[in-house]
Amino acid sequence: MASDEQQIRDLIATWMVATKAGDTETVLSLMTDDVVFLVTGAPPFGKQKFAETQKPPGGGPRPKFDGRSEIQEVRVLGDWAFVWTRLTVEVTPPGGGETHKRAGHTLSVMQKVGGRWLLARDANMLTPVQV
Amino acid sequence: MASDEQQIRDLIATWMVATKAGDTETVLSLMTDDVVFLVTGAPPFGKQKFAETQKPPGGGPRPKFDGRSEIQEVRVLGDWAFVWTRLTVEVTPPGGGETHKRAGHTLSVMQKVGGRWLLARDANMLTPVQV
Repeated sequence: MASDEQQIRDLIATWMVATKAGDTETVLSLMTDDVVFLVTGAPPFGKQKFAETQKPPGGGPRPKFDGRSEIQEVRVLGDWAFVWTRLTVEVTPPGGGETHKRAGHTLSVMQKVGGRWLLARDANMLTPVQV
Repeated sequence: MASDEQQIRDLIATWMVATKAGDTETVLSLMTDDVVFLVTGAPPFGKQKFAETQKPPGGGPRPKFDGRSEIQEVRVLGDWAFVWTRLTVEVTPPGGGETHKRAGHTLSVMQKVGGRWLLARDANMLTPVQV
């Protein structure tokens, strides 16, 4: 059995792989039902809104996603944990449009529910950067 | 003796009052020595850099500060806690210059050290808004 910290690292790795693969169902399975996403310049949102943002507009082909998460700190506090990462995300529109890159830090709260670590709160401080 | 949640709420209230009063020494006493501030568009920084940002440039009169913190969630996890707030900050330069207002959400990790709650990690997602 992997340590709690390793399970949390695995959760983040799975999240990145599933996002790259466009596997929204897997990504949604990695968060609590009451998850809260906090971002700059927009109201907080939850699981349903997150799912909607993963769908390409108009139902067309989805953008190509690439990303890299560098974990800066993991602190396990019983059935809760917090994680600080440096995250880089690159999104390329279908048809070979210009790649948009965002980078910055995240501070997340994880919760162990039924023996599985899940994302519960997520603070995203990414800003656009030059590709 | 106030509950842990109440002590955390008091810490935030004291932080706001001390910041308005320009009492940097008190604000610095409310954070751990290894505190990390995460913001958009800049590298993470710690206590020393925080103290420097509180000094007005050139040693002149300091800006007028006003702010309001609305606590959305406090979750105590033993000697750690996380707190989600909606924060509004208004800064007016000395001499009556234009007021700059920023608003948004914060996600913070608090740590109980020697019986006192202190800010340990702070994710700040504030963006400029119209006054």
